[in-house]
Amino acid sequence: MADNTLKNTTYKIAIDAMGGDFAPKSEIEGVIRVFEQNYSKEQLEIVFVGIESVIIENLKKYDVSKINYSIINADEVVTMHDDATAAIKNKKNSSLYIGAELHKQGKVDAFISAGNTGAMMSTCTVLLGRIKGVSRPTIGTFFPTVSGNPTLIVDAGANVDSKPKFLTEFAVMGSIYFSEMLGVDKPKVGLLNIGEEKSKGSEIVVETYSLLSESNLNFIGNIEGGDIFNGKADVVVCDGFTGNIVLKFAESFLGFLKQSIKNFADKSLVNKIQVGLMVPTLKKVLSQFDYQDYGGVPLLGVNGVAIIGHGKSTPKAIQNMILRSIEIIDKDINNKIGLALSETNNKTTN
Amino acid sequence: MADNTLKNTTYKIAIDAMGGDFAPKSEIEGVIRVFEQNYSKEQLEIVFVGIESVIIENLKKYDVSKINYSIINADEVVTMHDDATAAIKNKKNSSLYIGAELHKQGKVDAFISAGNTGAMMSTCTVLLGRIKGVSRPTIGTFFPTVSGNPTLIVDAGANVDSKPKFLTEFAVMGSIYFSEMLGVDKPKVGLLNIGEEKSKGSEIVVETYSLLSESNLNFIGNIEGGDIFNGKADVVVCDGFTGNIVLKFAESFLGFLKQSIKNFADKSLVNKIQVGLMVPTLKKVLSQFDYQDYGGVPLLGVNGVAIIGHGKSTPKAIQNMILRSIEIIDKDINNKIGLALSETNNKTTN
Repeated sequence: MADNTLKNTTYKIAIDAMGGDFAPKSEIEGVIRVFEQNYSKEQLEIVFVGIESVIIENLKKYDVSKINYSIINADEVVTMHDDATAAIKNKKNSSLYIGAELHKQGKVDAFISAGNTGAMMSTCTVLLGRIKGVSRPTIGTFFPTVSGNPTLIVDAGANVDSKPKFLTEFAVMGSIYFSEMLGVDKPKVGLLNIGEEKSKGSEIVVETYSLLSESNLNFIGNIEGGDIFNGKADVVVCDGFTGNIVLKFAESFLGFLKQSIKNFADKSLVNKIQVGLMVPTLKKVLSQFDYQDYGGVPLLGVNGVAIIGHGKSTPKAIQNMILRSIEIIDKDINNKIGLALSETNNKTTN
Repeated sequence: MADNTLKNTTYKIAIDAMGGDFAPKSEIEGVIRVFEQNYSKEQLEIVFVGIESVIIENLKKYDVSKINYSIINADEVVTMHDDATAAIKNKKNSSLYIGAELHKQGKVDAFISAGNTGAMMSTCTVLLGRIKGVSRPTIGTFFPTVSGNPTLIVDAGANVDSKPKFLTEFAVMGSIYFSEMLGVDKPKVGLLNIGEEKSKGSEIVVETYSLLSESNLNFIGNIEGGDIFNGKADVVVCDGFTGNIVLKFAESFLGFLKQSIKNFADKSLVNKIQVGLMVPTLKKVLSQFDYQDYGGVPLLGVNGVAIIGHGKSTPKAIQNMILRSIEIIDKDINNKIGLALSETNNKTTN
């Protein structure tokens, strides 16, 4: 029987121990990193949710004396191939469902999973509910830029066929999140479009342009695909269809570059030597685009703190997801979103 | 007075001499390259369309004895800042309008411009008309892939808010173009989406999936943003909104990489030396992604051969645009599109 009595620490964070491709190894090692580097046992308690025997077996491989944890058993696992509604419909004994349920019941302050993104979004939305004024919860992803600060793409894939009202809400949520996490007052909001003029783009986008123009946001107008990396906008607003495609396309750049270098090296011995000399420097340059640093994305707009990680999350990514969740709690982001949306809605309906 | 009597050559190609950012220099030098490297004066005649005095003045800088050309005067110029309908509405004496008009009248076999893309699309669509069965002409852009062959993204920005029927037509036109230009029988057609399952994506995309499934095309299903560079599909079908954003985002990647390398080099002398050693090799690797090689994109679906070039077209790009137009003529691509669409439409309506 797991010790499921939650202790009186500052933060209690539940983590889906069966979530990512490297679960529970990444999850356990990520938690160990947090206790080694960031928080004491008095400050933080981690609740591992998953198949108890598997978790216990894996924990044996580590010195866990320095970490403060408990285990909540969950017999089922939502896989990457499961439908987004799987946990809600059929797998209520899954780690993903039970973790979200624990958060709903107020037994933990946040829930983290590197598992099935769609299932995590729908389960958390259904169980936790939406913040007042939010039509659709959204996920925002940070992209690196040449300007130093990253840019936040919102929505990065949670919603397709978004109405102008939804896109405007994404902009509000994204602005608050960017502002709080990066310490930037009034972040610049750009609408992703195919030209700068306000008449450009799809009907949805043209209508969103006018809603954003009327809002309290620091709306800088349309931006194009070529502006994402230059940091022209802090927050880039788009439908989840476009956002997801841009995100996955961007993630494939490094692999494409790597394969191109390999193809070049394979052509001759001289090429191979030149590449051998180049690669260490190139790796250093590219190390700044480490997606692990951002450590997962929050599901913005739900009544709770739910962090969704990449399936391939490493221990470092898991560590950052935990730190990210605590930051969101500390900065009271959900209350700020609720307040901002009530102002936006008052403005629109007045 | 320009010599506007068209001579009896195999090909007569009109070129907008005022089009690109480097006009008429790039245009003239591109033409010279074609006569030096590809076609004789007996095979090809170029018709420069633009302000006659400017063209003559610029031609003086070169030995033009080896090129076969004539000039058609056009007093006005469509700029990059003009609206897409500018040429049709107000600038009928522009090089862009007169060039398209020459083609409409059958006085030239093709018309090429590195000028205002939107104006070129709308002017050619209005003047040349559409091939029977085409709802919306489209532009397709080649992207490099790790597989060797490029992939064709269609629509790359000509149409937003495309209906499933339009997207299916883009797939047909793109397949024929890819097949003829790359010599690939039955190219693989992928639908750009946010997941592999047929139920994924926006309403438009879901409906397009079923139309493509019923077509004669070699439809391989949905592909994701991360699949563009891996060459999973030969032809990637998407709405022009998504296509344009992906294209401009991709074009910005090299600039982003360059700036990141510069930022790294600026940090220390050691970094600067390492970068100095790396850059020559990296340039060789990246040279294969030279967009100039593809030399402009055709406006597929119009009754004619209209090639649209990048505003920053170099002489090499202009040369390739001319070669591309001749290839399209030789391969009788427009007739093949008309035939394929009449088959597709018969199939759909039966």
